[in-house]
Amino acid sequence: MSKGLKVVTIGGGSSYTPELVEGFIKRYTSLPVRELWLVDIPEGEEKLKIVGNLAKRMVKKAGVPMEIHLTLNRKEALKEADFVTTQIRVGQLPARILDESIPLKYGLLGQETNGVGGFFKGLRTIPVLLDICQEMTELCPDAWLINFTNPAGMVTEALLRYAKHKKVIGLCNVPFSMTQNLAKLLHVEAHRIHIDFAGLNHMVFGLRAYLDGKDISQELLKQIARENSSIHIKNIPEFNWEPQFIQALGVIPCPYHRYYYKTKEMLADQLQQFQKEGKTRAHHVYEVEKELFALYQDPNLQEKPKQLEQRGGAYYSDAACNLIDAIYNDKKNIQTVNVENRGSIANLPYHSAVEVNCLITKDGPKPIAMGELPTSVIGLVQQIKSFEVITSEAAISGDYNQALLALTINPLVSSDETAKKVLDEMLEAHRAYLPQFF
Amino acid sequence: MSKGLKVVTIGGGSSYTPELVEGFIKRYTSLPVRELWLVDIPEGEEKLKIVGNLAKRMVKKAGVPMEIHLTLNRKEALKEADFVTTQIRVGQLPARILDESIPLKYGLLGQETNGVGGFFKGLRTIPVLLDICQEMTELCPDAWLINFTNPAGMVTEALLRYAKHKKVIGLCNVPFSMTQNLAKLLHVEAHRIHIDFAGLNHMVFGLRAYLDGKDISQELLKQIARENSSIHIKNIPEFNWEPQFIQALGVIPCPYHRYYYKTKEMLADQLQQFQKEGKTRAHHVYEVEKELFALYQDPNLQEKPKQLEQRGGAYYSDAACNLIDAIYNDKKNIQTVNVENRGSIANLPYHSAVEVNCLITKDGPKPIAMGELPTSVIGLVQQIKSFEVITSEAAISGDYNQALLALTINPLVSSDETAKKVLDEMLEAHRAYLPQFF
Amino acid sequence: MSKGLKVVTIGGGSSYTPELVEGFIKRYTSLPVRELWLVDIPEGEEKLKIVGNLAKRMVKKAGVPMEIHLTLNRKEALKEADFVTTQIRVGQLPARILDESIPLKYGLLGQETNGVGGFFKGLRTIPVLLDICQEMTELCPDAWLINFTNPAGMVTEALLRYAKHKKVIGLCNVPFSMTQNLAKLLHVEAHRIHIDFAGLNHMVFGLRAYLDGKDISQELLKQIARENSSIHIKNIPEFNWEPQFIQALGVIPCPYHRYYYKTKEMLADQLQQFQKEGKTRAHHVYEVEKELFALYQDPNLQEKPKQLEQRGGAYYSDAACNLIDAIYNDKKNIQTVNVENRGSIANLPYHSAVEVNCLITKDGPKPIAMGELPTSVIGLVQQIKSFEVITSEAAISGDYNQALLALTINPLVSSDETAKKVLDEMLEAHRAYLPQFF
Amino acid sequence: MSKGLKVVTIGGGSSYTPELVEGFIKRYTSLPVRELWLVDIPEGEEKLKIVGNLAKRMVKKAGVPMEIHLTLNRKEALKEADFVTTQIRVGQLPARILDESIPLKYGLLGQETNGVGGFFKGLRTIPVLLDICQEMTELCPDAWLINFTNPAGMVTEALLRYAKHKKVIGLCNVPFSMTQNLAKLLHVEAHRIHIDFAGLNHMVFGLRAYLDGKDISQELLKQIARENSSIHIKNIPEFNWEPQFIQALGVIPCPYHRYYYKTKEMLADQLQQFQKEGKTRAHHVYEVEKELFALYQDPNLQEKPKQLEQRGGAYYSDAACNLIDAIYNDKKNIQTVNVENRGSIANLPYHSAVEVNCLITKDGPKPIAMGELPTSVIGLVQQIKSFEVITSEAAISGDYNQALLALTINPLVSSDETAKKVLDEMLEAHRAYLPQFF
Repeated sequence: MSKGLKVVTIGGGSSYTPELVEGFIKRYTSLPVRELWLVDIPEGEEKLKIVGNLAKRMVKKAGVPMEIHLTLNRKEALKEADFVTTQIRVGQLPARILDESIPLKYGLLGQETNGVGGFFKGLRTIPVLLDICQEMTELCPDAWLINFTNPAGMVTEALLRYAKHKKVIGLCNVPFSMTQNLAKLLHVEAHRIHIDFAGLNHMVFGLRAYLDGKDISQELLKQIARENSSIHIKNIPEFNWEPQFIQALGVIPCPYHRYYYKTKEMLADQLQQFQKEGKTRAHHVYEVEKELFALYQDPNLQEKPKQLEQRGGAYYSDAACNLIDAIYNDKKNIQTVNVENRGSIANLPYHSAVEVNCLITKDGPKPIAMGELPTSVIGLVQQIKSFEVITSEAAISGDYNQALLALTINPLVSSDETAKKVLDEMLEAHRAYLPQFF
Repeated sequence: MSKGLKVVTIGGGSSYTPELVEGFIKRYTSLPVRELWLVDIPEGEEKLKIVGNLAKRMVKKAGVPMEIHLTLNRKEALKEADFVTTQIRVGQLPARILDESIPLKYGLLGQETNGVGGFFKGLRTIPVLLDICQEMTELCPDAWLINFTNPAGMVTEALLRYAKHKKVIGLCNVPFSMTQNLAKLLHVEAHRIHIDFAGLNHMVFGLRAYLDGKDISQELLKQIARENSSIHIKNIPEFNWEPQFIQALGVIPCPYHRYYYKTKEMLADQLQQFQKEGKTRAHHVYEVEKELFALYQDPNLQEKPKQLEQRGGAYYSDAACNLIDAIYNDKKNIQTVNVENRGSIANLPYHSAVEVNCLITKDGPKPIAMGELPTSVIGLVQQIKSFEVITSEAAISGDYNQALLALTINPLVSSDETAKKVLDEMLEAHRAYLPQFF
Repeated sequence: MSKGLKVVTIGGGSSYTPELVEGFIKRYTSLPVRELWLVDIPEGEEKLKIVGNLAKRMVKKAGVPMEIHLTLNRKEALKEADFVTTQIRVGQLPARILDESIPLKYGLLGQETNGVGGFFKGLRTIPVLLDICQEMTELCPDAWLINFTNPAGMVTEALLRYAKHKKVIGLCNVPFSMTQNLAKLLHVEAHRIHIDFAGLNHMVFGLRAYLDGKDISQELLKQIARENSSIHIKNIPEFNWEPQFIQALGVIPCPYHRYYYKTKEMLADQLQQFQKEGKTRAHHVYEVEKELFALYQDPNLQEKPKQLEQRGGAYYSDAACNLIDAIYNDKKNIQTVNVENRGSIANLPYHSAVEVNCLITKDGPKPIAMGELPTSVIGLVQQIKSFEVITSEAAISGDYNQALLALTINPLVSSDETAKKVLDEMLEAHRAYLPQFF
Repeated sequence: MSKGLKVVTIGGGSSYTPELVEGFIKRYTSLPVRELWLVDIPEGEEKLKIVGNLAKRMVKKAGVPMEIHLTLNRKEALKEADFVTTQIRVGQLPARILDESIPLKYGLLGQETNGVGGFFKGLRTIPVLLDICQEMTELCPDAWLINFTNPAGMVTEALLRYAKHKKVIGLCNVPFSMTQNLAKLLHVEAHRIHIDFAGLNHMVFGLRAYLDGKDISQELLKQIARENSSIHIKNIPEFNWEPQFIQALGVIPCPYHRYYYKTKEMLADQLQQFQKEGKTRAHHVYEVEKELFALYQDPNLQEKPKQLEQRGGAYYSDAACNLIDAIYNDKKNIQTVNVENRGSIANLPYHSAVEVNCLITKDGPKPIAMGELPTSVIGLVQQIKSFEVITSEAAISGDYNQALLALTINPLVSSDETAKKVLDEMLEAHRAYLPQFF
């Protein structure tokens, strides 16, 4: 690191990149990123150029000595990197559109990271991330991989199991957003709130909540129940929880839990939307991205445009910068990330990937012992974990039977017959990105 | 036991009783039951008399010195008992009809032991069984309680948690039936087959299968897949498993697993049946029972009529006799029963009730260590266990919120909103048998 | 806490108290202790007055508005306390002299916190601490008990098991001292060193060591081996580790581990010392204390005298102030304390007391997940834990057989016959303080 | 197995062999051993001939068609074997003499299977057993290895960890002898007694005891205490347990536990014996063996001589025959053997070798779930397990540091300094049999 940090962003042509660049600029004094390599694939070259040029203008305006490199040569980029971030989308938005629309034909939820959609995103993504890890082992063995490619939990599980490169962290903006939203609910500033997060990615629970260090878990659950409220995030319908359910649950669910505790309602809503509009959320994102790239092309734009914050994944890149900052500077602050369990959630397997509060140190994240997940939620969490583990296996082996098993035991599918039908159609539809199955 | 064994059967007026009586008669030499007390409640008095008189005729014909006592006074019966069996139905068949029909209105499965129906059967049954245990602690502290009242797993869980009386065994005929059916599939006699059973009641898996002691697990799964077969029992539709699913699962599911791995198909089938016939299975059982009692009244009948074997729960009573025989005679043979886990299924909680192969000794059942349930099934099993635990709590506390929580996390419900609606209607419908909630 | 904090120090007449007072004075701005109650028993009244008056002079000189209260009325003191610290010695130094000298007669180590001595100190101390907890439940239920009375691990175990009051933390200065000493070995400032501590009190290991955040565990072990060094503390002979042993051990032992990995040498040394001098360490401490109190009586002394730092337990009180400060101000820094395990050491029982790095928050210490203790040490640690658990039981029940069992399984005793002899003599010797056994 | 069973006995020249031969003759009808191959090394050729000829005379007299093959060619013998038993002594009796005498110089117990002696026996034996397993994988992959070479627990641990061949069972006669002795104590026939055994080899406990199926654990412990008795076996001094200790322990220790709960007394006794006689037990065994072989040479001897029963390991071979019989005939009876834990002892590691009651089936031993070992013993058991694991590692790697670590943590050593001295002398003394260290 003698000449400053080298950061590599794979999927650098993503519309999120300006947030990442802004994050590094803001933190330059304490986190001197001298080289930021934006890497993409040939299909993403145009986007890479647009985003890369914006990044260069941003850096120039800010007056920091950060070099922006644009490349399609991943190996060149990875050489001697200090940190690697990944924000890829194998098959790009068209693949997401398939993930979100085909399942609906079979009366199944079409969603990017849960159910059938998440399953296929996992199958496409895991082999690519494994390749990246393999290259890192050779080219930058001391670098941390910070993955915010979804499904981040399943990807982390697969990498912990099958990659030699062990410096891997999965990152998600959900815990951060939940804290923000709970602060709003309480009408206090977010920094006064602390939540003990534990679970899996997109299946994380707030076990206990604190205001100025004082445990307010019970009051908060009552307030959520009383205001008939819920904790929202951008891309999930805002159905409220039954007050008595949320109180008995005893822990704060994340927005994605609606898929599991309001399965019927979420599915019905999605089917209705799709029938009405003929569009999935992926179509919508497609439009937003087009607009963003139109903005990014403006040679007068020299900073992250406000509109980016409207995008679902806002704060993702900020979270990544925070994490890199805390590692580089051994900050020992607390962040919620996806890592090996190691007993931090006492009733989940020791070697599983979990999403849990960690102390962030130069030596990486150290999970804080959260005790046992309560009886009310451990079953569902274990079931999703089993789904992730078997999907990871199938993603690597390309074993059809394993894939069918994984899909059948997913609680949003629960049918071997339907699972087979949707599996067959989607394997065919994503064939180009799933060579392991053919 | 100086004057021979005293056995008490609570719910003695059940149509199953003749099988039990036959079982004791057959085993009289090694298992000398001198007193069989059939106990029932006032609403069941007429049935008790019919069944009791048949029992007396059976005993007389067999020429064994077994005294048959009929009583409505449970405490009198329990005094100094050696074994107590329970086969009660709180609210009788009309309650079952409600359990099976109301959920259908909400698009939920209506079934006696799974989902909403099993939940309400549990709420009604658990307090009664706890009362019985309480009386046993006082009146016959050394007696074994052998419960075959459904939902047997949930009842065992509740008794292990809340009863002082610790000599409790839950019994089910599913493992026995599975062995019979697998033997048929293999065209061999059942005694040559041995299955390593582990899981929960109505959620038990055959982990490994043996023919003449040789492990044939893989061949058997292939055969099930090849013949597109399934393992049937009387009261569950005979949908077959997808061949690739069953092979990847790697263990043999029980018939009830169809509710969880073919949820859509099972529900659709049931809704269609109900629409067509306007009847649930409970209605059908009601008819069968009427016919049986008509037969039982015949003063010339002196043995168990063949027709009883058509009834769903066949072999239940035989299983109970076998179990009592093995305990009394310290037989150290293997039977599959519901007991405290104690590490026998290494990845389920130590103190949970599980259904597992046990060595049956005079000191009770000793579970055999089965290792860990495979990843593919542990999540679902833990979820059902969580459901059972929270239902047990709610059954005793009468806490509405806990009840709502239990119902919502049941994988056949998965909706807090729908759970609330069906809970409200059914609490009202079963009000007379659920005083704890009012 | 409206009028500032109320802190109660039980055993306030201890020679350590001036360090505690100095600690509170130094931190007054952030940690406004308005009332410090020093409590003692009638036998300690004179010391209490001497120390209390010194404390008053210290406060006056420092010009902080801290009220010093001296009392023999514990209940009055505890009323509405915010923090309670305990530094008692049941039976005072004469009891310690017995603890350290009688075992030597039987060829057993005489030591205050390990082996027979620690066992008897535990038997005398646990009931008193339980009484204090009981009073706290009534008089100051929200207060934290910070116990630095030895054997601190065993006391924490007993309180976690038997006290209703759950806000209990055990504190020891060993981890702090080890960090200091390792820093010296590395010739760096202590704040640059971080150690992952995990184990039990006086049986804690440094699992991994960091310099400026970088893992230097292997280098450090090599250096300890190379310099034929050891990590010392005041009151334990400085025997060095065998270089090959320490490297194979793979973790950094604490000074007290010499009793277990150099049992023969430590015992031989102690026996020789005792024969030569006719004195135990307790005798020596007795002298030091007399000198300290002579100093404390000097009306011109207005600050903590330097000589106090020569005393074995230096930094104990400073550690207590740090802990209280971090809780009160929700500092979320890392301190090594004795708390309930909750999975932080994955291969020790979930509910055991362990000594482990914790994040210190307003809601108390949150242990950091340390994973599993290595195979090389888990057996010994579990054995000491078993000893602590059974001693706790015996301390409360007064059961002779349990006491004999605990003593026999202690690895420094390992003989039922010798255990019985020394138990009988020492029960008699400490009779006045062990009413539960008579 | 078409032409009957082929059994291979490695170390066939052992003085125990006639018992084995007798066992096979007695069971011939149900267990048709057609070929018994006795294998030995060149140094044992003479003994092999003597024993082999006796075996032939025994078979002839009995009139069973069992072929006795004598060979020094292990590979030839192993080809297509059905069962392989091992009863080897690497370095023969002279090595045992060193194991038992050198430690005494350092004030350490000299014993064949515990402490320093057991450690070295393990180092010598493990590599040979691994070689045998390796050959079995190639030459008889379906055969069971039944090892009764000591230290049987450590050997089983090593084979479970490092051998590909998984059909391995460790066998010991201690549980069998304990049952015999407890029956004598109770003045009943042994078959009426059943003990729940769980622990490690030579560190097994009787958790519960049954007479005619009734739990008599408490009464039995009281009787052991009252009669000031102990459970003896041939080769261990008959020191009695302190009555109050044994009652508090709550479980029945095995004879070898005296080394851990009477360490001082056992060591003192051994030192005194050695000083008096100048001989260890090994010397004594040496004499006995010479006498036995003199007997075996008598051409008129056609059966197992009575004198063999005086030898310490009596019933070992009978135990082996019983085990082979139960596997071959899928007897599903209960025997206590050394196998992979798999949750049967819930608070020991899942994959560890343990000695525990198993159901013996054609598919091998299935451990019975024994629950958790009590707090009073789990620490010591885990410590011995850790010792076994690290010794296994050292035996294979030949790593000096690991060897020193293993020896230091052994509770009969407990000193890194003394461990180093005795290690150095004994490595040199056994150099010929420990090539991995040189």
